[in-house]
Amino acid sequence: MQTKTLGELAQYVDGKIIGNPGIVIKSASTLERAGEGDISFLANIKYEKQMQKTKASAVIVGREYTYTAGVPLLVAEDPYYAFMQILVLLHGHRKHKKVGVSPRASICDTAKIGADCQIHNFVTIEDDAKVGNGCILYPGVYIGAGAQVGNDCIIYPNVTIYDGCRIGNRVIIQANAVIGEDGFGFATHKGIHHKIPQVGIVIIEDDVEIGSCCAIERGTLGDTVIGQGSKLSDLVAIGHGARIGPHCLLVPQVGVAGSATLGHHCVIGGQVGIIGHINVGNCVMVGAKAGVINDVPDGKVLAGVPAIDAGTAKRAYSLIEDLPEMRKSIRDFEKRLAELEKPDKS
Amino acid sequence: MQTKTLGELAQYVDGKIIGNPGIVIKSASTLERAGEGDISFLANIKYEKQMQKTKASAVIVGREYTYTAGVPLLVAEDPYYAFMQILVLLHGHRKHKKVGVSPRASICDTAKIGADCQIHNFVTIEDDAKVGNGCILYPGVYIGAGAQVGNDCIIYPNVTIYDGCRIGNRVIIQANAVIGEDGFGFATHKGIHHKIPQVGIVIIEDDVEIGSCCAIERGTLGDTVIGQGSKLSDLVAIGHGARIGPHCLLVPQVGVAGSATLGHHCVIGGQVGIIGHINVGNCVMVGAKAGVINDVPDGKVLAGVPAIDAGTAKRAYSLIEDLPEMRKSIRDFEKRLAELEKPDKS
Amino acid sequence: MQTKTLGELAQYVDGKIIGNPGIVIKSASTLERAGEGDISFLANIKYEKQMQKTKASAVIVGREYTYTAGVPLLVAEDPYYAFMQILVLLHGHRKHKKVGVSPRASICDTAKIGADCQIHNFVTIEDDAKVGNGCILYPGVYIGAGAQVGNDCIIYPNVTIYDGCRIGNRVIIQANAVIGEDGFGFATHKGIHHKIPQVGIVIIEDDVEIGSCCAIERGTLGDTVIGQGSKLSDLVAIGHGARIGPHCLLVPQVGVAGSATLGHHCVIGGQVGIIGHINVGNCVMVGAKAGVINDVPDGKVLAGVPAIDAGTAKRAYSLIEDLPEMRKSIRDFEKRLAELEKPDKS
Repeated sequence: MQTKTLGELAQYVDGKIIGNPGIVIKSASTLERAGEGDISFLANIKYEKQMQKTKASAVIVGREYTYTAGVPLLVAEDPYYAFMQILVLLHGHRKHKKVGVSPRASICDTAKIGADCQIHNFVTIEDDAKVGNGCILYPGVYIGAGAQVGNDCIIYPNVTIYDGCRIGNRVIIQANAVIGEDGFGFATHKGIHHKIPQVGIVIIEDDVEIGSCCAIERGTLGDTVIGQGSKLSDLVAIGHGARIGPHCLLVPQVGVAGSATLGHHCVIGGQVGIIGHINVGNCVMVGAKAGVINDVPDGKVLAGVPAIDAGTAKRAYSLIEDLPEMRKSIRDFEKRLAELEKPDKS
Repeated sequence: MQTKTLGELAQYVDGKIIGNPGIVIKSASTLERAGEGDISFLANIKYEKQMQKTKASAVIVGREYTYTAGVPLLVAEDPYYAFMQILVLLHGHRKHKKVGVSPRASICDTAKIGADCQIHNFVTIEDDAKVGNGCILYPGVYIGAGAQVGNDCIIYPNVTIYDGCRIGNRVIIQANAVIGEDGFGFATHKGIHHKIPQVGIVIIEDDVEIGSCCAIERGTLGDTVIGQGSKLSDLVAIGHGARIGPHCLLVPQVGVAGSATLGHHCVIGGQVGIIGHINVGNCVMVGAKAGVINDVPDGKVLAGVPAIDAGTAKRAYSLIEDLPEMRKSIRDFEKRLAELEKPDKS
Repeated sequence: MQTKTLGELAQYVDGKIIGNPGIVIKSASTLERAGEGDISFLANIKYEKQMQKTKASAVIVGREYTYTAGVPLLVAEDPYYAFMQILVLLHGHRKHKKVGVSPRASICDTAKIGADCQIHNFVTIEDDAKVGNGCILYPGVYIGAGAQVGNDCIIYPNVTIYDGCRIGNRVIIQANAVIGEDGFGFATHKGIHHKIPQVGIVIIEDDVEIGSCCAIERGTLGDTVIGQGSKLSDLVAIGHGARIGPHCLLVPQVGVAGSATLGHHCVIGGQVGIIGHINVGNCVMVGAKAGVINDVPDGKVLAGVPAIDAGTAKRAYSLIEDLPEMRKSIRDFEKRLAELEKPDKS
């Protein structure tokens, strides 16, 4: 952990200071928990009133924030990004122990391991697998035959990577995720489900992060692809042959069915389901719990089951609550109309 | 397995007997499967007609149950609790083999292991981790650097506990669950998602049980907390910085997003999603598949997406089925009103 | 990999050829990716226009398909099944390395291992467990005390099978799945959730496949059963005492709650939830994301939350989008009716 002055931090993130630039900052914390020497941040206006009570030595805020409750401010164009930069500077990312290549790992003779790798006990690397330079494989990791892992990857405990899959550079896979299990492919004939060999693989491009307990199926014939820089959170299911474009964010418990494609920079909310064989465009946002069942053009924001335009969905779904009242009105209208339609009314 | 008379069991659970107290009970079973020597129970009135056919030697029932179909009854104030007590008495909880500390486990020199622990083969305990007394760690368990496990915990195979996390006493973690993987935190800047160090930890308080394949993220700055006595079922996702109060029940596939808080004694149904940064009060019940998007006061019962009062939801959601009919009526009314509004009608 | 002529393949699958039977086929691929020597298939009419551009040497089609875009056709009664047969013929299923019984596995003396098994490093087989002939257990697999695995099973890395569970013949369990963890059973008494011993087991019948990161709870007293030939995809949760009939398909992220039963040949869509203690009949199909809360008769097709007839649901749910318009009409009608009902109107 490093110590910096507020002035040094402002310079580092190209921000401005309201207050004393000489204040010493030792670490970062939340507004609620911060104490002397901590820098905090306000990225969500919901927490603004915590500014009154915080004991932080300084707070990172956006340019639209002008009021100071006595606490020194570091004003940044993108306060959350500035906070990330400062957090990396002060705390750094996780440090990994240097363990070298453990003799208690199980590494086939035909596997190739790059330089500076940390291969823990109880790791298995099968025939003809390749692991690049600077990789960290935690205990219980399994790398199947012929699988390839690029440089500088971090693979946490008990991750399984099946045979032949290809992992790019700087990929992070959180514990207990599975890459490349057989796709759910069966030909049903006379009531029996016959297993279809899943000949494709999974390709994970550079800079991807995969969450814990994700399950990413290998393709039947084509490949399943997770595009460069995309991030998957925990318990996400990706079907065989699906292609997730670059720089997407998939939050927990999302399911993308087989052969669906997503463009770049999509943001998919929690527990969303995307059915198979559809094309979701670029920069599409899907609200939590939605069910996407049709092709989606670029830039759409969707919500609901079935997913529709999010603005429409917000109004429409909030009216479900009013259905009993609406039906009551309809029944009432029926009576009143019948009354009005009586011959003697005209 | 022990043998008891029905009279002894009644005394043990403070219940009353309708029938012969001398009947010998050897084990517990369902009404459907029970045979001679088995005690069964009726906690759900749905299964009442099985009382006619059961071959159980006795059945535990609640005080509201007066009818006996010839089978001896053990009447208890809380029949499900009495059943649990008797099941523990007759069958006990799982017995764990005494294996001591296996030489085939991988335990760093600086780790501390308490007395009477059973540490199986292929367990990893990293630097400065502490495991209390009487803990059982099954094969493939990973305890990260500096993590702390209290006394009398049972951690089933292939569970991963990341560095620094703190597990209380008498905690049970079912197989392949993950505690403390990195929170899903990225600062997106110019289209690139930059990883934010996740400096917080996960705190699991005493008497918690975590289901298989759960994924509980560590906090970004603050901690993720699972409160004392809470029970999580399988495949539950808890986001970074979420705080689950004590004595909550979260059933399978629930997702709680980051920084959400739940009070005590909440019961959250299957596949429910709770969005981030909201406060759910105490004793809140949420029906299966609901989506909670707003703060919830104490004692509320919710259902639906978005979640509303469960009673309202039950009526409202059941009317979705009638929407085609309702729209037909509206179109019909439009015509009839137009007809009535014609000048010659007035 | 084998090489066959198109004529040989047609004979193998009992199909007919439109084109040259002497064409040599080396492998199978998608319409999009196929090149010379590849056979492809058209099972989904959605991809028909790819027939124009494919470079495949032949395409498997159904009998209803008569048009040929110049590419030789193999016409089969069930083209997807024929494709499966040919894919197995040409590519085969995954080959598993012969590793014998590794000395680095941990196998209790009282465990019994059949002939021709491949037991990898870091596998654990506990007391009195039995593994049949021809089984493949990958690294990190845990077989609990007294558990039984039949013949010719493939169990991928880091799968946990708890004590006493029974796995049939030719069962495939994908990586990191869990079989037989404790059911979510607690008796809540005075605000405390007391753990109920889960005395039942999980029975997986012959020819079942279980996906990655599935969690199948053992029963409290009765057993949890996955019927013969059923296939579960990834991240599926099965509650304690549930019984899935034979030849069902459960796609990713399905949840079946405790004591629910499904008949044979049910197809359950992604992210569906089925509540506990209900009976779902035979040949029932449930659309993605549905919530089934009542008994279901044989042959029904359901969708929606709560699940209703799928045809009705399709019409009804698509009308949610129109709710704002419907309410506007209702408010408008109210005014117009009030106007019409004015005394001077009659």
